Amino acid sequence: MGNRQITAALIGVSLPYLSSCAHFGDKGADMIFAKGEKASADFFTGSAWVNILVAQDETDSYSVGDVLFEAGARNSWHTHPAGQILLITDGKGYYQERGKTARKLVKGDVVVIPSNMEHWHGAACDSSFTHIAITNKTKNGTVVWLEPVSDEEYNALK
Amino acid sequence: MGNRQITAALIGVSLPYLSSCAHFGDKGADMIFAKGEKASADFFTGSAWVNILVAQDETDSYSVGDVLFEAGARNSWHTHPAGQILLITDGKGYYQERGKTARKLVKGDVVVIPSNMEHWHGAACDSSFTHIAITNKTKNGTVVWLEPVSDEEYNALK
Repeated sequence: MGNRQITAALIGVSLPYLSSCAHFGDKGADMIFAKGEKASADFFTGSAWVNILVAQDETDSYSVGDVLFEAGARNSWHTHPAGQILLITDGKGYYQERGKTARKLVKGDVVVIPSNMEHWHGAACDSSFTHIAITNKTKNGTVVWLEPVSDEEYNALK
Repeated sequence: MGNRQITAALIGVSLPYLSSCAHFGDKGADMIFAKGEKASADFFTGSAWVNILVAQDETDSYSVGDVLFEAGARNSWHTHPAGQILLITDGKGYYQERGKTARKLVKGDVVVIPSNMEHWHGAACDSSFTHIAITNKTKNGTVVWLEPVSDEEYNALK
């Protein structure tokens, strides 16, 4: 047992930097929007919650939702026919495009996802993760779901 | 001096419910997005700060910004040719449509503003107020500014 682990045991707290999870910094604040409905297990790994804030305005060109991923949860690989914007409001998570290094995300980050880009997003393994999503609509829908992000892919994240 | 004021003086704290400001409940948490640029005095009363999060995505159908109003600050009466959505993330504020009672807003509230509706939004007199704004674009622009919200109108808010 190393000195830091001994210290942690003595003072009775967990030390997040001892975990194998990637380190993001401080944890975020309390929730802004209500938790919403449980996301479908068909398209999500782990527990996530979706609150549709605006399903349709008069332009009918996008919807606005809030998504809370519990630690370790993520959506499957997918694409958006007309793109999507993510506004990160709490916690720690990732956005990864196919074939690229995952981008670490924290409160205040913004992601503009291009149309038809294969990607996924979700929480870090030791933190919940919350983002607002503005999803552009098309006559062919808003999302095309692909395969889940495997544990091998997820656990390999830095 | 009343009993509550004497108690306040004795324990050395301010009691917000003694002020003439309307009461909204607890104050919100820390900031999500950076403060941005000072809003123009041509269209705002008091100090407000605008951070453009996404000026344009590939659809070019809306922009996304974050607005922080300091206590007492508000924008002028205005309309949006294609509407706007507000997502309240912190503090206490108001949304008022012409001729109607102002709606009190707190963290987690959502406002869908119809096209061409005369309205204003801004902070309560004793709290800052922060919202994300999704502003729909048209070939005729995104906003038509009208006259300021006068102190008489603002101070009459319940």
